[in-house]
Amino acid sequence: MKDIEKILATFDPATGRMDGAPLTQRFLHDLRRCFHDAAAFEQAAAAGNPLIYTVAGVEPGAGDGDLHYGVGMIMPGRIGDEYYMTKGHLHSWREAAEVYCGLAGEGVMLLEDEDGGNSRMVPLGAGKVVYVPGRTAHRTMNTGTVPLTYIGIYPAKAGHDYSTIARKNFTSIVVERNGAPAMVRRGTKA
Amino acid sequence: MKDIEKILATFDPATGRMDGAPLTQRFLHDLRRCFHDAAAFEQAAAAGNPLIYTVAGVEPGAGDGDLHYGVGMIMPGRIGDEYYMTKGHLHSWREAAEVYCGLAGEGVMLLEDEDGGNSRMVPLGAGKVVYVPGRTAHRTMNTGTVPLTYIGIYPAKAGHDYSTIARKNFTSIVVERNGAPAMVRRGTKA
Repeated sequence: MKDIEKILATFDPATGRMDGAPLTQRFLHDLRRCFHDAAAFEQAAAAGNPLIYTVAGVEPGAGDGDLHYGVGMIMPGRIGDEYYMTKGHLHSWREAAEVYCGLAGEGVMLLEDEDGGNSRMVPLGAGKVVYVPGRTAHRTMNTGTVPLTYIGIYPAKAGHDYSTIARKNFTSIVVERNGAPAMVRRGTKA
Repeated sequence: MKDIEKILATFDPATGRMDGAPLTQRFLHDLRRCFHDAAAFEQAAAAGNPLIYTVAGVEPGAGDGDLHYGVGMIMPGRIGDEYYMTKGHLHSWREAAEVYCGLAGEGVMLLEDEDGGNSRMVPLGAGKVVYVPGRTAHRTMNTGTVPLTYIGIYPAKAGHDYSTIARKNFTSIVVERNGAPAMVRRGTKA
């Protein structure tokens, strides 16, 4: 059997911090071109470079039946009317699905077909599980006032494709409207 | 994209109840021969047939890259000195791993190599993730005083093999010793 370090991982559900796992940290300056309001982004980026999200990744095995997972945390906040978000990705192995389980805080996931033709906003938080089918771009946002934490599990061979999103971005955005998240087409007037 | 019923599942983290998902319920009489103390089992089974655990299963897809998951709940309690537990299983596709994430309550998982040669007791609860590698029999126990809830995610094609465990059982058991769970070899004197 594998070593115990490969079997058991412990994290803080409120912060997503996990002992012993590599932690990816994304700061505001890493998210240039993700947000639709370029002026609001530049203003915020000039004022500082706050932490936006972290992912603690665990890769216990690399076989066909193995799984990888990440514990994610997104800080609360907005750039203009758009919520703090992850970069978003597709899986390199397009068939690979991912299961997201919310742990604490409140957020949504934006799911889009690979060709951008179909967008969906789905709530994520404690007691909610979001199934991201294969060939579906996915991005997570914190729509609440405390850190959003969640765990995402995917096949070991899924791989991450960030470049397609970096080039095309999502066709929809999630913005605050009357105190609640709303999904609208990128480029439409508010 | 799939229908929203395939994308979003909502459950109660305290009870594991999930709207719209098939619920497997296991009662004490279903667990005959799981517990090591046969006299204690017969006494408890004569007195009633309480609910021991439930699993709400979700199977959103059946492709190579798809995942299935279950939200489990185990009631607190013991038969003799042995904690309420699941039947335990191997995956039919032996290479398939499973990720368990604790949600509420306190418990442990018993992991054993397929040949029974190596046993390990691993804690499970909020903030703990247990990686069950392929070829590893796994059983979950509630060692606390409130329901233990958790989510388990596995490849869609994993399949469940309960019959191997039903025939051989686990070689180790988890019992209460001085108020804490302890793993001992089945058949050893307390």
